Amino acid sequence: MYPEKRIKAAVIIIGNEILSGRISDSNLHYISQKLSEKGIYVEEARIIPDKRSYIIDAVLFLSKTYDYVLTTGGIGPTHDDITTESVAAAFDKKILLNNEAKQALINYYKTTSLNDARLKMACLPEGSILIPNPISGAPGFIINNVYVMAGVPAIMQAMLMNILPLLKQGDQIISETLTIVGGESKIAQTLSNIQLVHPNIDIGSYPRLENNQHIVAIVFRGTDTQKIKTALEITKTAFEKLDVKILN
Amino acid sequence: MYPEKRIKAAVIIIGNEILSGRISDSNLHYISQKLSEKGIYVEEARIIPDKRSYIIDAVLFLSKTYDYVLTTGGIGPTHDDITTESVAAAFDKKILLNNEAKQALINYYKTTSLNDARLKMACLPEGSILIPNPISGAPGFIINNVYVMAGVPAIMQAMLMNILPLLKQGDQIISETLTIVGGESKIAQTLSNIQLVHPNIDIGSYPRLENNQHIVAIVFRGTDTQKIKTALEITKTAFEKLDVKILN
Repeated sequence: MYPEKRIKAAVIIIGNEILSGRISDSNLHYISQKLSEKGIYVEEARIIPDKRSYIIDAVLFLSKTYDYVLTTGGIGPTHDDITTESVAAAFDKKILLNNEAKQALINYYKTTSLNDARLKMACLPEGSILIPNPISGAPGFIINNVYVMAGVPAIMQAMLMNILPLLKQGDQIISETLTIVGGESKIAQTLSNIQLVHPNIDIGSYPRLENNQHIVAIVFRGTDTQKIKTALEITKTAFEKLDVKILN
Repeated sequence: MYPEKRIKAAVIIIGNEILSGRISDSNLHYISQKLSEKGIYVEEARIIPDKRSYIIDAVLFLSKTYDYVLTTGGIGPTHDDITTESVAAAFDKKILLNNEAKQALINYYKTTSLNDARLKMACLPEGSILIPNPISGAPGFIINNVYVMAGVPAIMQAMLMNILPLLKQGDQIISETLTIVGGESKIAQTLSNIQLVHPNIDIGSYPRLENNQHIVAIVFRGTDTQKIKTALEITKTAFEKLDVKILN
């Protein structure tokens, strides 16, 4: 349904704390929005623990499958921060002290020497390109098509701002929403027919409950403004015939 | 680091609307918390689009790898609801009209006959066990070790309440948190040493920014209260020697 030449990305969220239910991830939502604005489709996301084999498997598979892979989490100085070494292992790269990263940490900590924990954050896979971290010094890095970022949302967001200009610009993704009152079963057949004759638009039907009332958002998503507008108008007309209450 | 006999689950969140950045998923966090309370470890989660091949691949791989797989999303009546047929295909099962599901829908809609869209929600993989849906009628289902739930959070939560009693009870997972002020690099070596001598406890270090202040939550997680308490006390004492400010 999507344009065939679309630019595709995957996101890997690394962290036991999300899988244990201790905290709720907010990074995926932020990354998805920013990539979508750039015309890049996030095709899948994986949330995995801080375990070497999980990170290696996910990085290898997703980096082969998609144009870009963005990861968050696990690049700090503690024992459970194993993203850097795992990404290096996935690509069979050595971990080397990166002088540029070391200098960034020295500047951040306003010191002349770094303890081992801080030095660890300056050790990156050979051939990495740094992702500057304006908030806490320790950089992320790019290796092949994998963009490795911090997990703390404010730091990840700052790193992502530095990454976005480096990514290819896709066709602008346009999205229009039609919101109705009622359940989905009344409109299902009509929507299915409209989707069939508009294969280049992705029509999604997203029900929700609001004050015990069934609401459905019908979302038309694609890259051709005119086609989206046409599909939206056809849908509106069909819904009016079905006596469906359109909210907006 | 975890107990070897632990009960393991994976979660599959199915829905384009999450990957497109239109909405933020809240189901994973809820499921992770409830399973953790039941002593079940969520080992990974995948967020995938409403695409047949993605659903089949994820269901096949994860159902072989873990004790339980819980899915959310894509079981409604519209054309983009393809979870049921995809899960059936993954297990090479036919889709059959399930009379119990049909009756649940008839009761919910207070009708004697169902249109095609509603009948679709009563068509389930052969051999499925129903998961009752007290909110909007259409049931979820269980096939093998896969638990298929709705995506609307209130409905998913109601279905999960019906699933939890069916799952094996794991050893109770206990979690204690020590919160400190400062960065991670000062405590990294100490924490690493403590983790090494406490292999049955999972020690996680989770930094965050609060009002531009670095805060770290050190989380001790496991099933042995005494071991967790010991590790926590040793860590406190070590931090005091390092002059680390403990918040709580």
